[in-house]
Amino acid sequence: MTDKPAPAAYRAPAQLTLTALTTIPLVTAGDDLGALIAAACEREGVKLASGDVLVVAQKIVSKAEGRRVRLATVEASPRAVELAARTGKDPRLVELILRESRSVLRIAREALIVEHRLGFVLANAGIDQSNVEAEASDPCALLLPEDPDRSAAALRSRIQALTGATVGVIINDSIGRAWRLGTIGTAIGVAGLKALVDMRGMPDMNGRLLRSTDVAVADELASAASLCMGQAAERRPVVIVRGVEGIVSASDDNRGARQLLRPLTEDLFR
Amino acid sequence: MTDKPAPAAYRAPAQLTLTALTTIPLVTAGDDLGALIAAACEREGVKLASGDVLVVAQKIVSKAEGRRVRLATVEASPRAVELAARTGKDPRLVELILRESRSVLRIAREALIVEHRLGFVLANAGIDQSNVEAEASDPCALLLPEDPDRSAAALRSRIQALTGATVGVIINDSIGRAWRLGTIGTAIGVAGLKALVDMRGMPDMNGRLLRSTDVAVADELASAASLCMGQAAERRPVVIVRGVEGIVSASDDNRGARQLLRPLTEDLFR
Repeated sequence: MTDKPAPAAYRAPAQLTLTALTTIPLVTAGDDLGALIAAACEREGVKLASGDVLVVAQKIVSKAEGRRVRLATVEASPRAVELAARTGKDPRLVELILRESRSVLRIAREALIVEHRLGFVLANAGIDQSNVEAEASDPCALLLPEDPDRSAAALRSRIQALTGATVGVIINDSIGRAWRLGTIGTAIGVAGLKALVDMRGMPDMNGRLLRSTDVAVADELASAASLCMGQAAERRPVVIVRGVEGIVSASDDNRGARQLLRPLTEDLFR
Repeated sequence: MTDKPAPAAYRAPAQLTLTALTTIPLVTAGDDLGALIAAACEREGVKLASGDVLVVAQKIVSKAEGRRVRLATVEASPRAVELAARTGKDPRLVELILRESRSVLRIAREALIVEHRLGFVLANAGIDQSNVEAEASDPCALLLPEDPDRSAAALRSRIQALTGATVGVIINDSIGRAWRLGTIGTAIGVAGLKALVDMRGMPDMNGRLLRSTDVAVADELASAASLCMGQAAERRPVVIVRGVEGIVSASDDNRGARQLLRPLTEDLFR
């Protein structure tokens, strides 16, 4: 009798394939992403199977959800004006960053590092100005989805309804890190899969118990998929990962990407 | 005429496959990793091709290089004894952590967050006590390789000599992050590939120039491979990634994993 359940046996796959869909059209507000993805799969001869994980770029989720904001409609607060002067940014963009954030952690030369209202620590609240269809005379910004975990869950249900496949869904974004240069694909929304696999209590190769090895598999998948998405010119916002069915749940016991956030009480670097 | 060269055109692959070798034997000090990998490829019917990337777990590199230390041979300094008392760790292990580090950044409940002598910020200087063959009565620890970039370069040359294939090599380790829970595979040694791909100056889908999007592709590959390695019971310390030949260099113009380190002057989170 133990008072702690043994962790579910997770076996890493010896093979993993990632396939980017290449015919997803430009997405606009109101689009049914599930239908666009199912249609692209059909066109490209990709048959979704239960246990597949779909990694979807934040940008198209935000666009479909109408999270594009015309800067002309934004009025900058005095604080935004002040921070804009210090960072060389458009005050209206800074205003949006502040509205999307709980707090500003650091002010860098060209970026505000914030705690986003969703709990993520990232530059400029994840607000994007590239790849947002707009005239130079009417600049726009694209905010993160309102609730990426909810977006992921909705997309998962929609894919199930359209294709019959029980997939996991990850919404990823390219996010910078402390201490290391460069962005990496990171999970900001998760549904239908274990974002964090707890290896504690599993014996290692010599029978010694592993002590603390939570693995952020959703982030690893988000990074892997990012390799296929490209950054810009390629239009590949959806990648299908095959081989990790061991972490995909039949039921959506979804704790989402929020479970990847380090609690404030354990956070040593703010 | 421009005074800045255009970035090399990098096209993300629409498909990526990861294959773990499953017959690498237990590695001990002095082993020729290149030969072990070439033999496993042969046994498993895997033919290495130029442009493949080999991701190799830090543990087997450290073992092959004899970086295992018997704690009985270590004398703890007064500072190690003090930090051991605060963290509940073995003072001799703390001594090794201090010797491997430039500075201690934070003291957590069960870990020392340090700047490793190689520049990486990580818990316990990356020193491992699991999966190190040892009797309980004679505990051992495994240090990171002395110079993982050099290890990667040597392995790359050896693989080329044995198989004729010009591959990229990444040595990865599971490393924790600020702000997020769980470890992810991260590149600590790199040879023969671009660790950081600079997308600056590349037009995005709407012709707007991307401003700052360095992508840490070596870290994304390290994470992707980690999904196939498993954490412990699986003996899969080598993963072959196929599809990213665009970042694998014919010549080893190697700036290594060091180029992924954020310069201290730009670091806002120490």
